[in-house]
Amino acid sequence: MVDSRFHNVAGPFTLGQVVEMTGAELRHGGDLARPFRDVGTLEGGGPEDVAFLENRRYAASFRTSTAGACLVTPEFADQAPEGMAVLVTALPRRNYARLARLFHPQETAPAGVHPSAVVHPSATLGQGVAVGPGAVIGAAVVLGDGAWIEANAVIGDAVDIGGGTRIGTGVSVSHAVIGARCFIYPGARIGQPGFGFEMDASGPFLVPQLGRVIIEDDVEVGANTTIDRGSNADTVIGRGSMIDNLVQIGHNVVLGRGCIVVAQVGISGSTRLGDRVVVGGQVGIAGHLEIGGDVQIAAMSGVNRSLPGGAVYGGAPAIPVREWRRQIAALKRLGQGKSAPGSKNEG
Amino acid sequence: MVDSRFHNVAGPFTLGQVVEMTGAELRHGGDLARPFRDVGTLEGGGPEDVAFLENRRYAASFRTSTAGACLVTPEFADQAPEGMAVLVTALPRRNYARLARLFHPQETAPAGVHPSAVVHPSATLGQGVAVGPGAVIGAAVVLGDGAWIEANAVIGDAVDIGGGTRIGTGVSVSHAVIGARCFIYPGARIGQPGFGFEMDASGPFLVPQLGRVIIEDDVEVGANTTIDRGSNADTVIGRGSMIDNLVQIGHNVVLGRGCIVVAQVGISGSTRLGDRVVVGGQVGIAGHLEIGGDVQIAAMSGVNRSLPGGAVYGGAPAIPVREWRRQIAALKRLGQGKSAPGSKNEG
Amino acid sequence: MVDSRFHNVAGPFTLGQVVEMTGAELRHGGDLARPFRDVGTLEGGGPEDVAFLENRRYAASFRTSTAGACLVTPEFADQAPEGMAVLVTALPRRNYARLARLFHPQETAPAGVHPSAVVHPSATLGQGVAVGPGAVIGAAVVLGDGAWIEANAVIGDAVDIGGGTRIGTGVSVSHAVIGARCFIYPGARIGQPGFGFEMDASGPFLVPQLGRVIIEDDVEVGANTTIDRGSNADTVIGRGSMIDNLVQIGHNVVLGRGCIVVAQVGISGSTRLGDRVVVGGQVGIAGHLEIGGDVQIAAMSGVNRSLPGGAVYGGAPAIPVREWRRQIAALKRLGQGKSAPGSKNEG
Repeated sequence: MVDSRFHNVAGPFTLGQVVEMTGAELRHGGDLARPFRDVGTLEGGGPEDVAFLENRRYAASFRTSTAGACLVTPEFADQAPEGMAVLVTALPRRNYARLARLFHPQETAPAGVHPSAVVHPSATLGQGVAVGPGAVIGAAVVLGDGAWIEANAVIGDAVDIGGGTRIGTGVSVSHAVIGARCFIYPGARIGQPGFGFEMDASGPFLVPQLGRVIIEDDVEVGANTTIDRGSNADTVIGRGSMIDNLVQIGHNVVLGRGCIVVAQVGISGSTRLGDRVVVGGQVGIAGHLEIGGDVQIAAMSGVNRSLPGGAVYGGAPAIPVREWRRQIAALKRLGQGKSAPGSKNEG
Repeated sequence: MVDSRFHNVAGPFTLGQVVEMTGAELRHGGDLARPFRDVGTLEGGGPEDVAFLENRRYAASFRTSTAGACLVTPEFADQAPEGMAVLVTALPRRNYARLARLFHPQETAPAGVHPSAVVHPSATLGQGVAVGPGAVIGAAVVLGDGAWIEANAVIGDAVDIGGGTRIGTGVSVSHAVIGARCFIYPGARIGQPGFGFEMDASGPFLVPQLGRVIIEDDVEVGANTTIDRGSNADTVIGRGSMIDNLVQIGHNVVLGRGCIVVAQVGISGSTRLGDRVVVGGQVGIAGHLEIGGDVQIAAMSGVNRSLPGGAVYGGAPAIPVREWRRQIAALKRLGQGKSAPGSKNEG
Repeated sequence: MVDSRFHNVAGPFTLGQVVEMTGAELRHGGDLARPFRDVGTLEGGGPEDVAFLENRRYAASFRTSTAGACLVTPEFADQAPEGMAVLVTALPRRNYARLARLFHPQETAPAGVHPSAVVHPSATLGQGVAVGPGAVIGAAVVLGDGAWIEANAVIGDAVDIGGGTRIGTGVSVSHAVIGARCFIYPGARIGQPGFGFEMDASGPFLVPQLGRVIIEDDVEVGANTTIDRGSNADTVIGRGSMIDNLVQIGHNVVLGRGCIVVAQVGISGSTRLGDRVVVGGQVGIAGHLEIGGDVQIAAMSGVNRSLPGGAVYGGAPAIPVREWRRQIAALKRLGQGKSAPGSKNEG
């Protein structure tokens, strides 16, 4: 039940189109001309909505669902309620996501520069660029074709933004080169000076921060996230990486491609992550470390040394996940007033 | 000593009015016509200020206080300095708060739309609405009577904001329905897409985020806090809940009524909190959990499973508070080179 | 290799000027008239760049560096590649920082008020004040000489900002007095009401927040950091303190002089820090505590009691660092299935 005040809907699409789009196998309810108007949930969906079931926790809801069609794994296909078009697929959730995108294409900006925006005459705007009310575009800025700068965002001098990239409301960007098809969510801060200082007889004094932020193509940066520019080198966010809200990325940090960084993570200066690293929520990573490719770090861990690639870590300080689980179990026993296993006195 | 540049003062009020307002019992200094001009502290208050004492740590300050009147619990009444009007009450702090509100009524906005604001012609503005400089009000927005949108805030298309609600400077709101008498502090981000994606051969791809944010009446949302909209269901903040600064609320999260969420907490997607849950600072709560009503969670805890209601939890992973305290004590002994109590070898 | 689109360069300066500026001793490559155009890195620097070496991890890069000059400690002087001007100093990094400031003077704002800014007629603007596009300056605001208010920042009524202070894009300031030569980074929120309420039969109700934020001279406040105003007293940030991004500072908190607070720290209401306290990233400090001068707190620690000055603490709850390290070691053994040392059964 998508609220049409907020979300446009394309379609309707026929069951045949849904089958084709998802590659699912149709088991029941096979009128290929049957129209569908939206995606929906098992419990809230109506006869013209397509739902999905992947987590067996929701199997009971599936058996009584009023949704007109449902993407399911083969094991549940026989439990479908009468009249439901059953679409069998190995990956219901992923195919549901694709279908949702079909019904709800990405928003497009109304092209053009709002009269209240302030665009420096030396800025270069590509075809179909949108600049919202109150946005500020500095000198020598380059905005690629179809770039969308939302209301009250501020783009500093000489910043280069790729085609199709969307900069959310109230975002600040300076000293940065941003690729194509990125989405920077509201309130993110990109390119301010990093936290760099030297101590002196008279206290800390600032070290000039002379680098940039480089954001490659297809990157998402969450709301109110902060990415400092490099001090002498650059801060780099690799292609396809996704960064959640309220994340702090220090100066000179390098993220590889396809990394996932969950909310409220902090990555300290000059640390480098390989490709496809997954960092759980609220993790802290100290500075000047190397985190190997395909590493996964459990939520709330504290990483204080470099981590070899291809493994899972947890805890503070972070250690291999198996060792960490044993620590937790041992602590649990301590909390219950029992001694640790493997103590000689237990033998 | 309130700085009158920043805070207006109503009054003066007589001692009689103060007695009536607070329901306190007047023990000494009983001239009911005596005027009072403000609330104040024990140490900084003058003869026309009303202070309070609740924490016995400050009893010495009470005995030498220069404040003209003081709200106290009965046990301290006899220790008052000469000339002080002593107001005996079981709840000095609460009554002080009420009195502070009497002397310092809430700020009211100058009604009207600032000429630099950008208001879409299809928006509906109630009686006495205030829209500050540079604020942007989208198409089909509804602002209830007395709503106050501060400078440079951006209200997205079709957002519905209740009467008397105040939206702070630089806030972004989209895909949201907000109730009456709420206060959204500066820089909060409400309604952006949640962190939802599926993995693919080519890396993560986005799942359309088709829900809304529903904020019920009398809610406070702290500065730079982020509340993502639902993916298919809605993200809901229950009536009277208070959320501090820099909190992250993921998509589809449901908070009950009267919840208190302290600064820098993160609540992951689809987790549901009952009524009157108190979440301490920097706590992380994983996704898809159920936290029962009246639960209290100690600061910095990490919650990775559902928690039954009406109990206190702490630690990471979070456990019942008694067990957690034993863990801490056992750890302390370990740090001091002692073995755990309850080990068989100690018997 | 500084990107000249984003960073202006002063100079060139002669080797003689560099020697004089840094106080270093010139060992090799002694043509004092030799020109230098910038600072640079060991690996990327060219013949007209000055690099530095302080960390022995980078000694190999030094031996093959193409930089024209390098600041080094005496022990490395003999390993310099041919043609490099070797500048011997006890503090290479600090002198490099000074040199970087010489080559890259701080940005200066173009003085004047942008026509799209909204400045209340009762505001007082000093000499050379800059106000960017879309910025809002309230009634009775005072901006000292050379103050720089960047685009879309909002300065509330009666706020007082000292000379040379820079307020970044999209910042909100209210109920505050800010000193000279401060830098408030983009998106910071200063002066909003703290998280103060009393419980009631009908749930939490707000306590008026009647104090201010006082920021002394030479303070840095990071991007999207939040500093709440005092409830009855003031929130104070002492002279020369540096606060990183996404930090939360509660009402009535007092920071001494020269404190360093790393990203994502949270300091709860009414806690007081002495001078030169260093707080590592993601630390949480509970309310109403006293942290002594020169305390250092390790990243991610949780402080739940007052800490005597001049010592290092870590852990959650935070304890003296030596005890904390022993805890970590004991936990590690538990994770590996070993008992704790010092258990009687090990003797």
